[in-house]
Amino acid sequence: MSTEYYEDIKLHQKYRSREYRLTEKEIIDYAQKWDPQPFHIDPEFAKNTKFGGLVASGSHLLAICLKMEGEKRPRRAWIAAMGLDKIGFLTPARPGDILVFENELISKRESKSDSNAGIVHFAAKLLNQLDEPVLTYEVTALVEKRPAKGIHTSESGAR
Amino acid sequence: MSTEYYEDIKLHQKYRSREYRLTEKEIIDYAQKWDPQPFHIDPEFAKNTKFGGLVASGSHLLAICLKMEGEKRPRRAWIAAMGLDKIGFLTPARPGDILVFENELISKRESKSDSNAGIVHFAAKLLNQLDEPVLTYEVTALVEKRPAKGIHTSESGAR
Repeated sequence: MSTEYYEDIKLHQKYRSREYRLTEKEIIDYAQKWDPQPFHIDPEFAKNTKFGGLVASGSHLLAICLKMEGEKRPRRAWIAAMGLDKIGFLTPARPGDILVFENELISKRESKSDSNAGIVHFAAKLLNQLDEPVLTYEVTALVEKRPAKGIHTSESGAR
Repeated sequence: MSTEYYEDIKLHQKYRSREYRLTEKEIIDYAQKWDPQPFHIDPEFAKNTKFGGLVASGSHLLAICLKMEGEKRPRRAWIAAMGLDKIGFLTPARPGDILVFENELISKRESKSDSNAGIVHFAAKLLNQLDEPVLTYEVTALVEKRPAKGIHTSESGAR
């Protein structure tokens, strides 16, 4: 099975990613482009902030989550993310942290408007090496149903 | 006034960013690193998907929002984002789109645990050149109160 379709994603099915090593260079590189606040790009300045040192940008952490979801094999047949909800930034992520992404299907239903798709709802979290939750959120996405046998739809985002 | 503190951010205060021109190169560059799905990185493949062409990654669009919030002058004295909520991906963003970010303060209150800070809650949206909402969300953040006169706190993220 090279793709997981709507029918294959079972309630409470869990995915746990590989480990992601967060470096100071990556924190700074990302933030210089997308979120150049001093506590994301200036290690010396960051020492005297509430964080006590350099921390990753929230949008960087979310990008890491979505990247690790995308690395899942077999791929899930996502058509599109519809929304993200309840994103909480719970523990700062720092240079040297080893992050792991997990998600779990918490509900699913058929799409009313698209008979070829279903709607899945996952609870997701990014954990650090102390098993502390760095970031938690929920995501709702449209996924393909399994195509009629032997036919591969070109509408799939999965390939 | 070089910084907006908790006291300065008034209910229903609005911010509207500069225009942000989204290019095909930027969509592909971002997605190759963070979200390498074919409808984000392969213009030919994308033509045959539900989107009918290349579209920006959701995490890319969120990064654009946070970048444009950060460009506001005077800066807001954010200490940290506490959470994002109700993120909806409403209209795909495509090469050539001209995006504008807006947010509005919808509620504020004093922090119970930190007498030097307040909690602010904004409704935010990213609009395209047709004034369609590309992305909407709400954000809750901790912001500094105005320091006692003449004293600049080193805890500020704003500089």
